[in-house]
Amino acid sequence: MPTQSLNFGIIGAGRIGQVHAESLCYRLPQANVLAIADIFGDAARAAAERFHIPHATDDPTELLDNPAIDAIAICSSTPTHAPLMMAAAKAGKHIFCEKPIALDLGRIDEALAAVDAAGVKLQIGFNRRFDSNFQRIRQGIADGEIGSPHILRITSRDPAPPPIDYIKASGGIFLDMTIHDFDMARFLLADEVEEVYAQGGVMIDPAIGEAGDIDTAVITLRFCNGALGVIDNSRQAVYGYDQRVEVFGSGGTLSAENNTPHRVTASTRGGVSQAKPLHFFLERYMESYVAEMRAFCEAILNDQPTAVSGNDGRIPVVMGLACWKSYREQRPVRLDEVTLS
Amino acid sequence: MPTQSLNFGIIGAGRIGQVHAESLCYRLPQANVLAIADIFGDAARAAAERFHIPHATDDPTELLDNPAIDAIAICSSTPTHAPLMMAAAKAGKHIFCEKPIALDLGRIDEALAAVDAAGVKLQIGFNRRFDSNFQRIRQGIADGEIGSPHILRITSRDPAPPPIDYIKASGGIFLDMTIHDFDMARFLLADEVEEVYAQGGVMIDPAIGEAGDIDTAVITLRFCNGALGVIDNSRQAVYGYDQRVEVFGSGGTLSAENNTPHRVTASTRGGVSQAKPLHFFLERYMESYVAEMRAFCEAILNDQPTAVSGNDGRIPVVMGLACWKSYREQRPVRLDEVTLS
Amino acid sequence: MPTQSLNFGIIGAGRIGQVHAESLCYRLPQANVLAIADIFGDAARAAAERFHIPHATDDPTELLDNPAIDAIAICSSTPTHAPLMMAAAKAGKHIFCEKPIALDLGRIDEALAAVDAAGVKLQIGFNRRFDSNFQRIRQGIADGEIGSPHILRITSRDPAPPPIDYIKASGGIFLDMTIHDFDMARFLLADEVEEVYAQGGVMIDPAIGEAGDIDTAVITLRFCNGALGVIDNSRQAVYGYDQRVEVFGSGGTLSAENNTPHRVTASTRGGVSQAKPLHFFLERYMESYVAEMRAFCEAILNDQPTAVSGNDGRIPVVMGLACWKSYREQRPVRLDEVTLS
Amino acid sequence: MPTQSLNFGIIGAGRIGQVHAESLCYRLPQANVLAIADIFGDAARAAAERFHIPHATDDPTELLDNPAIDAIAICSSTPTHAPLMMAAAKAGKHIFCEKPIALDLGRIDEALAAVDAAGVKLQIGFNRRFDSNFQRIRQGIADGEIGSPHILRITSRDPAPPPIDYIKASGGIFLDMTIHDFDMARFLLADEVEEVYAQGGVMIDPAIGEAGDIDTAVITLRFCNGALGVIDNSRQAVYGYDQRVEVFGSGGTLSAENNTPHRVTASTRGGVSQAKPLHFFLERYMESYVAEMRAFCEAILNDQPTAVSGNDGRIPVVMGLACWKSYREQRPVRLDEVTLS
Repeated sequence: MPTQSLNFGIIGAGRIGQVHAESLCYRLPQANVLAIADIFGDAARAAAERFHIPHATDDPTELLDNPAIDAIAICSSTPTHAPLMMAAAKAGKHIFCEKPIALDLGRIDEALAAVDAAGVKLQIGFNRRFDSNFQRIRQGIADGEIGSPHILRITSRDPAPPPIDYIKASGGIFLDMTIHDFDMARFLLADEVEEVYAQGGVMIDPAIGEAGDIDTAVITLRFCNGALGVIDNSRQAVYGYDQRVEVFGSGGTLSAENNTPHRVTASTRGGVSQAKPLHFFLERYMESYVAEMRAFCEAILNDQPTAVSGNDGRIPVVMGLACWKSYREQRPVRLDEVTLS
Repeated sequence: MPTQSLNFGIIGAGRIGQVHAESLCYRLPQANVLAIADIFGDAARAAAERFHIPHATDDPTELLDNPAIDAIAICSSTPTHAPLMMAAAKAGKHIFCEKPIALDLGRIDEALAAVDAAGVKLQIGFNRRFDSNFQRIRQGIADGEIGSPHILRITSRDPAPPPIDYIKASGGIFLDMTIHDFDMARFLLADEVEEVYAQGGVMIDPAIGEAGDIDTAVITLRFCNGALGVIDNSRQAVYGYDQRVEVFGSGGTLSAENNTPHRVTASTRGGVSQAKPLHFFLERYMESYVAEMRAFCEAILNDQPTAVSGNDGRIPVVMGLACWKSYREQRPVRLDEVTLS
Repeated sequence: MPTQSLNFGIIGAGRIGQVHAESLCYRLPQANVLAIADIFGDAARAAAERFHIPHATDDPTELLDNPAIDAIAICSSTPTHAPLMMAAAKAGKHIFCEKPIALDLGRIDEALAAVDAAGVKLQIGFNRRFDSNFQRIRQGIADGEIGSPHILRITSRDPAPPPIDYIKASGGIFLDMTIHDFDMARFLLADEVEEVYAQGGVMIDPAIGEAGDIDTAVITLRFCNGALGVIDNSRQAVYGYDQRVEVFGSGGTLSAENNTPHRVTASTRGGVSQAKPLHFFLERYMESYVAEMRAFCEAILNDQPTAVSGNDGRIPVVMGLACWKSYREQRPVRLDEVTLS
Repeated sequence: MPTQSLNFGIIGAGRIGQVHAESLCYRLPQANVLAIADIFGDAARAAAERFHIPHATDDPTELLDNPAIDAIAICSSTPTHAPLMMAAAKAGKHIFCEKPIALDLGRIDEALAAVDAAGVKLQIGFNRRFDSNFQRIRQGIADGEIGSPHILRITSRDPAPPPIDYIKASGGIFLDMTIHDFDMARFLLADEVEEVYAQGGVMIDPAIGEAGDIDTAVITLRFCNGALGVIDNSRQAVYGYDQRVEVFGSGGTLSAENNTPHRVTASTRGGVSQAKPLHFFLERYMESYVAEMRAFCEAILNDQPTAVSGNDGRIPVVMGLACWKSYREQRPVRLDEVTLS
């Protein structure tokens, strides 16, 4: 039972903003939402009505100027993340920010410096760390259940490609999609990657290629401690959202299957069938969105470090940039080739 | 997005009362809770504080007298269910009532008559009907996916026995535990049972036997259309809450496995292991509690029949009484032997 | 590497005779087959050619009279089992006999007495005891892995009904099909059943009912030590041969899934599907047929008791007869009601 | 029922020679084994006794000179494969040869030329093609069940490393272990690989590194049609022989789980556990060894092409050599860099 509660302002009333609004308003007793802002004022007002949020606005600065607000959830479009982080930090607000911080390392570093200077809490929205499957694997590795990790395998495939307009602005597959897997790799092995090698192609939709992106990729990782990793991505798994992970080590292997809407098997003359994986990322990861926000609240209330730091937000961007370099130059690329550039 | 919302009063602030309070307060935008009552006023006040419910009282009649309240959720102890149903009906409130309505058919019939006379909605708390696994099976049967049902199998085992004091007042295993399975049998096959045969014993704790109950049972059912059913119950499955169902028919079989907290497999020198079933009924069935209350709200808002009628609450009690008769007389017992008594 | 080998004669060149011929000729270095007999001489000759057996005949007494033959495998029709057992015993041959020994307890007792008098080895063909799944469960129970058994569940469903002519002579479902499950029940729990209650019906084919049999059954068992058991049978599982077992006890549960021809999962837009259970009993149980014959050879070569005794062949017939009595009288029946009759 | 049968001579009475002897002697009616040769005459004699093979010798030329012998199974050590193939071809015998043909492309080409010149049948021992799991996947792809393949994933991990002396002569991990996976990749996708990139390390046993080999590897493949592949190898999976494959395509995915000795799940207070994968390659792949030899016999008897050609034996060696080059030069290597060298 919470003895304290936090007052939130939410910036961005799109899909992910509504996810966090629902968690903060309906699932987390330790949080209140005082206001929601969106440059489309109507969207802000609709969300405010839906979640019983007292104030809606098209001007995010109203939230930053409101002294009753303790924390800001930045759920607006990627280009606004870094400037809003800096403004919120300056206003002394704790910050939850969706990934990626930015597609440009300079802007990321500038934003993180502002946060550091302000001494506010910052948590980046890598929600998958809070999923029960991946938590179980992380815990097993931390407990030594499988000894030293040798090989990491991540399968991460979307049910359908995003709109081409999204792809054009997203930084491409390594920055809009694999970025989650980069974070997962670091989270699970508790080690840094030193080198990546990215292969890929346009196998699903030529329009994705025309937009300068690819839709299918296989990325290998070499960790600092010598472990190897493989990520395979596809923008279209017709059977649903395919999110599996395996970590193999000297003492065994831990592997996570997909979550499904039910556990029923139908056996008929035609065959034996089970549920497809949960199709939509909100179904698959809803509980992890609630859990990440709960963790953020508790980090603030207990004055502890957040579970996903600014650096945790920065490194996957470095990895994504290194993958693009690797893909284009058709050779393995060390992360320091990108970091130092 | 709800255009209307319902005002609830909750009677009973114990475990199940809190479950419904959480659903109504935090998960269902279409519901508001105006007041909560418990004969232990402190319990009512604690729950009110936790769920931000404006009014707490030790007197349930305050809720019935409040004209702003549309619906009452009866979550108090079993002996109070029937009298509260009658009082709520008389007050013109819609009623959600936990199972069982009563352990005595006369009292059940009296209460249901009062509800009928008042013309209010009534839904009985057989939440498992709303579980995604069982919904999937019900839908498959309704769609003809497995043809005509021939054999129903229900495995329903609790992780640990309830306190002996609970058992003494509960009506015994067939009325406190199998009652859910009786409802499931009727729900899945959409048919009535005409005869039961119950076997059982005290295998877990002699104190259960001393309390006049058994802790392990196997019940066979004969449905009116000729299908056969088997329920096996144990008050103690040391590996967790075991809740599986299979319906086999002329066209195949549908079977539901247990839900687990994660989908990770650990393979080590010691073996290959997976998660145990979810242990606690609230973990296992939380979403079904939300869904049943959502369905209740929508039945009222749309003026449609509720999903679990008063008769659906009555028949499983008949079945439980028939099982006790069968167990004691060591012979199959027809339901009409009980109904007519 | 065998230092000794046994010479076999096989009586019966039908389906099951060929199964054992294949095991003895091609899989078991410790066995030679010297001759095969079948009242249809052509069948005997065809099998002899196929398995390179030196002698074929339509007269089984040739095998019994052959001093080079150590053991006889009786694979002919049920009515011949008891007389052939007696003749083989008199000839001093070790005997492997397919189930059931007979459908009449008097004839069984007479045959077993002859075997006892002759002092030869006898093994009854309850091959499922040798299946790796059921061996694993038996071993787990024997090792105390699940404590005291409380509830046994057997699902045993054939892929398709046998010919009506077979049913007319087979003794009906409890003696031609459930008999295997009765043996399994006794084998797994290492305890005797004291009472059965059988329910059933004709749900698949009216012709089965016209032949005096049923095609669907649910049988409950009460073991001497108090444990309960449930067997469900169907003569037609359209998805394949469904052979599952679970034993639940004070310390947990052991359950066997079906075997499948492969372990591949196909996930497509249409769904997620896996292999159906192995369809034909010879596919499903071939290895157990080899293993039972290996065990028989080794029991003889090492002069040890066989794994399935004459009494193990007798009791399931008693259980089958008790089930018919229970089914007809619609009440639980104790085995001693049948044994003493 | 075979109308014809083939007479075999087996060269090599070690482990794999005995496997094929068992298949040819006990499982395949269409084959007879007339003689077995091994440079260790005692080994040949022991095997002859065990499998009832009429002739044993320490001189393989006796088999080649025997006009009654139709086909030779070459199961001796790798350096003898190519010379024996050439001698057998010259003697007009059909040839089954274990993999690899040789570790040197020149010797392979010379041997294949001799086979071509002689016009005899040749089948290389890539037995995994005949495994029911991989057959199912191959068939699904051929039938278009998953559309165009995009990503292939092979996990292939041994239960324990081979002796260091074996490793010193084997050509290293890419030629003694991954070679099977290279064949699997070509078999499943029915396409050639044009480029490989190999990463790896010594993670299990430093002695493996001292022998010039690695024990853990991740290899990516680029197929000619653009599909991507990933193989991960470990010389030590402590939980057993891990042999999984997945092919993901535009229409879905097909994935094969491990085979296990039984299908029993044990659920206890300690957890839920299942069987470890079959531990030993002979347990796991025994049926595929039988099936490959059956296919070889039938290819000869029906005068059809064998299922695994000489070229199928050659290309995986090219891939292994390309992987060593890639590993050493830390860059992707095209197969034609090796082929042309």
